[in-house]
Amino acid sequence: MSFRIGYGIDFHQLVVGRDLWLGGVLVPADKGALGHSDADVLLHAICDALLGAAALGDIGTHFPDTSAEFKGIDSKILLARSVELIGRAGYRVVNVDSTLCLEKPKIKPYVPQMQEVIARILGLTTGDVSVKATTTEKMGFVGREEGLVAHAVVLLERVN
Amino acid sequence: MSFRIGYGIDFHQLVVGRDLWLGGVLVPADKGALGHSDADVLLHAICDALLGAAALGDIGTHFPDTSAEFKGIDSKILLARSVELIGRAGYRVVNVDSTLCLEKPKIKPYVPQMQEVIARILGLTTGDVSVKATTTEKMGFVGREEGLVAHAVVLLERVN
Amino acid sequence: MSFRIGYGIDFHQLVVGRDLWLGGVLVPADKGALGHSDADVLLHAICDALLGAAALGDIGTHFPDTSAEFKGIDSKILLARSVELIGRAGYRVVNVDSTLCLEKPKIKPYVPQMQEVIARILGLTTGDVSVKATTTEKMGFVGREEGLVAHAVVLLERVN
Repeated sequence: MSFRIGYGIDFHQLVVGRDLWLGGVLVPADKGALGHSDADVLLHAICDALLGAAALGDIGTHFPDTSAEFKGIDSKILLARSVELIGRAGYRVVNVDSTLCLEKPKIKPYVPQMQEVIARILGLTTGDVSVKATTTEKMGFVGREEGLVAHAVVLLERVN
Repeated sequence: MSFRIGYGIDFHQLVVGRDLWLGGVLVPADKGALGHSDADVLLHAICDALLGAAALGDIGTHFPDTSAEFKGIDSKILLARSVELIGRAGYRVVNVDSTLCLEKPKIKPYVPQMQEVIARILGLTTGDVSVKATTTEKMGFVGREEGLVAHAVVLLERVN
Repeated sequence: MSFRIGYGIDFHQLVVGRDLWLGGVLVPADKGALGHSDADVLLHAICDALLGAAALGDIGTHFPDTSAEFKGIDSKILLARSVELIGRAGYRVVNVDSTLCLEKPKIKPYVPQMQEVIARILGLTTGDVSVKATTTEKMGFVGREEGLVAHAVVLLERVN
């Protein structure tokens, strides 16, 4: 058996007048995430962890924020393409563990739906996809509600 | 063999008049960590990594900081319960690697004791438990000594 | 088969009048990284991930910034020594995934060279070494160009 690990981190500003997409789910909130795509920080961190584990570059390489093709794009499409890329490279996903760092809103009620969305795209069960959340205890730019951060780790296994 | 990986991150403010518990050890310091429990940022990050690897939710799900049951609680108890949860889910811990980000005090002298405490709770040897430390070079809220951050990764293996 | 995972994080201030070494490559930039050694934040994060995975302490334990021996030292030497330490402990590196968080300059053009440098030292192919990069979207000390951060994860396998 042959395994690989990857880690991804992503950042987005929070601003009034944008939607807050997290883990492929639209979360009701006062502020939304600023970005070229739908700015789903959690899915972006997972994309980067997947690409990193397979040493296939990063989200900026494959989906540049200077390209009109990706303007306003649903990040679930980016995640699906990332999975396709690692599949072509001969890997399948074993499990994903992710953490959202944000001051508010409380995202716990939306976690099961995020797990379902992510699991479906990755071809996993929800028992193989973890989404956790924490505040930064009012500290730093996350604590000041200027932005949010997501971390993700993935384990890949070589297929056949 | 079946493996899983997890990653946890935790944050606590540093304030005068609180104890500084790190890795289950009381570390002499001018400031201590603020929190509902004993605010042991290192053990919390490890709990979250364990729960995340097994996709069992997070520390806030299992040990909510709104519950009187967990007020002032020794985080070693939370770590023991987290291990029990992943054990029931069919996993054992292979290794833990953790990093404390804090400006001061120097925690090197306390690391061997932290490794012993954590290893005993996880049923591992100290050779399977790593505790590292770094400053943030005076930058950010950690650099201003407003708070501290811990990161942890864990590898789990399915039992039988 | 026996595996271990590790995670490293490192921080350096950016200042005028210093070189910017990243992943063993000298990157043209207005500011460079401040530190006792050549302050290569990416190689330091990888060293710490390697040492942490094998529970062999951290970069501060093995290469103290108070030692004249390490003043201005090329971090490629520190990485080579870290690999030697984990080799003696019975491990080989399976893969490395790393992420640089910095506002500028764009490091994409230098990534292939960084992968080659790191792979050669670790005894891997460039397909086993990932270097990713992201800004923090102008937020925090990285966003203000006061400093930079690197994250790395590694998977180790026990030899024989």
